[in-house]
Amino acid sequence: MEAEVTHEMSIPDGGPGAPAVVVRVPATSANLGSGFDAVGWAVDRYLFAEVRPVSPGDRRRFEVVGEVPPDARAEGESLFFRAVGEAFARAGREAPELAVRLQSEIPPGKGLGSSAAVIVAGLVAANVLLGGRFAVEELLSLATRLEGHPDNVAPALLGGLVVARADGEEVAAVRLRLPRVPALLAFVPEVELRTPASRRLLPDTYARETAVAAAGRAALLVAALAAGELEKLPAAFGDGLHEPYRLPHIPGAAELYALCASARARGCLGCYLSGAGPTIMAVFATPEAREDFRRRFSEHPLALSFVPEPLALVEEGAVVLAPR
Amino acid sequence: MEAEVTHEMSIPDGGPGAPAVVVRVPATSANLGSGFDAVGWAVDRYLFAEVRPVSPGDRRRFEVVGEVPPDARAEGESLFFRAVGEAFARAGREAPELAVRLQSEIPPGKGLGSSAAVIVAGLVAANVLLGGRFAVEELLSLATRLEGHPDNVAPALLGGLVVARADGEEVAAVRLRLPRVPALLAFVPEVELRTPASRRLLPDTYARETAVAAAGRAALLVAALAAGELEKLPAAFGDGLHEPYRLPHIPGAAELYALCASARARGCLGCYLSGAGPTIMAVFATPEAREDFRRRFSEHPLALSFVPEPLALVEEGAVVLAPR
Repeated sequence: MEAEVTHEMSIPDGGPGAPAVVVRVPATSANLGSGFDAVGWAVDRYLFAEVRPVSPGDRRRFEVVGEVPPDARAEGESLFFRAVGEAFARAGREAPELAVRLQSEIPPGKGLGSSAAVIVAGLVAANVLLGGRFAVEELLSLATRLEGHPDNVAPALLGGLVVARADGEEVAAVRLRLPRVPALLAFVPEVELRTPASRRLLPDTYARETAVAAAGRAALLVAALAAGELEKLPAAFGDGLHEPYRLPHIPGAAELYALCASARARGCLGCYLSGAGPTIMAVFATPEAREDFRRRFSEHPLALSFVPEPLALVEEGAVVLAPR
Repeated sequence: MEAEVTHEMSIPDGGPGAPAVVVRVPATSANLGSGFDAVGWAVDRYLFAEVRPVSPGDRRRFEVVGEVPPDARAEGESLFFRAVGEAFARAGREAPELAVRLQSEIPPGKGLGSSAAVIVAGLVAANVLLGGRFAVEELLSLATRLEGHPDNVAPALLGGLVVARADGEEVAAVRLRLPRVPALLAFVPEVELRTPASRRLLPDTYARETAVAAAGRAALLVAALAAGELEKLPAAFGDGLHEPYRLPHIPGAAELYALCASARARGCLGCYLSGAGPTIMAVFATPEAREDFRRRFSEHPLALSFVPEPLALVEEGAVVLAPR
């Protein structure tokens, strides 16, 4: 459905009743290529959050349009309110009563950062209500603590391609400008593969060659993207740390990977498991290469298992749409 | 000693007797930060090679000024002639008799790419004699095969900061322009720690956390360098794949690392084991920060074990100085 943000809840004349805060946060695709747990980018699906402080006596309202993750669904325990509460607690203030409306285009449980978007939306909205007291670095640190890892929340907050690592409270994130932007095609299967369970699929140890190759590919991935040498990406893709353990649980994944590999000469640079999956993201040198792949794919038996959805990298992260 | 390239061997009027070929190749420091086996840069110490075809009857001459690696020292088996032979063989031609003079400022066995420089010099000189028939990618592939890995030969050939990975014959290398160039201080101990033995020090497996962190740090390292966000480098340094196993064999290394860590607020971004060591490279945000560190270091007991040597990143890789 089309995203549509209404301002019906706004109260024009302030009060606990300040003007409604409207925040937009993009979806994200992490574990990009060989950048397991470190590299992600923001893509053009959005979560909108509208937030309005209400008087303590007022009945709190919580409305969800579209789908959000299970732990964001119930008003009492919603991840959104936890994020708001965290920001206010960090500011040493009690969170106000809020009327909240979440409207989401980001499918939950698909490896597209739906939880990260909810967390970032809550923090950014709270920061507006707090008069913008937190710098973006502090919001990133708060978001990372709530999500457990920075690779989705960082691009959700900052936009674009972000390389991030958390070391305790400290989060180092570098946002890279890409001289050439690849085109994306998401294959979102119906399977659900939730992150915590999915992480338990990983082994306790890796062979030396695997670990060394993983670090080398991750370095090459970032270098190729930063330099705009997209033709070097095929050598940088191919994760060895999580995909070998997660892909077997996604019906059709192996065939889809083989299909991507066979399209290399036609501009398919590789594919990767988005987040913990089950979405598989194919990456192309140009939109034309993507369309060519999509056309051929529609005639392939795999088209029964996956619906390809074109996505675009977005430079803008979380934005405050109102008040402006 | 000062590098000085003389042309005393040149024969002005050609013949097998073509004009002398003079090649200059920089030293390199690989395994940069967390970029084990993948990231290296070229630094301002050089190997000069002067090569002149001589008639089959002529007595071949081989002269070495300064120090070169043991396997480059003896004329019969020198790595230099192997590189020349490899290029000619690849071109389907027999290598000519050559008079060769190597002049080196790169200390061998110290982790500064002395072997890589010899290999690259041999290939580039041979390529001149072959009329430049090989593109730089082919030279890189040949060099990688001779050296066994691309992380030194790639920056020796291309200059600057290079991220490289070999997959069989195919070598993917990305040369990054750095918006901000850090200052380097090499600590070259007297210890010799040769690469093959040194590689046997590494474990067969790594814990998952170690491998995942290594890939994440490698990605962040390249991102921080590419974006010029040098202040993020401390979070990206700290290798877990080889340094924990090699550093204990270098007397004083732990103390030197601690000293670097304690100087973070004064612009020390980190230190790393250059190549397989034993050189430890300290990286600074500015030349001033480096000088500050050097001044303080001279009053530290460690100054008895290490002589710090300032180095500069060089953008130019292998160059043909003659004929021009």
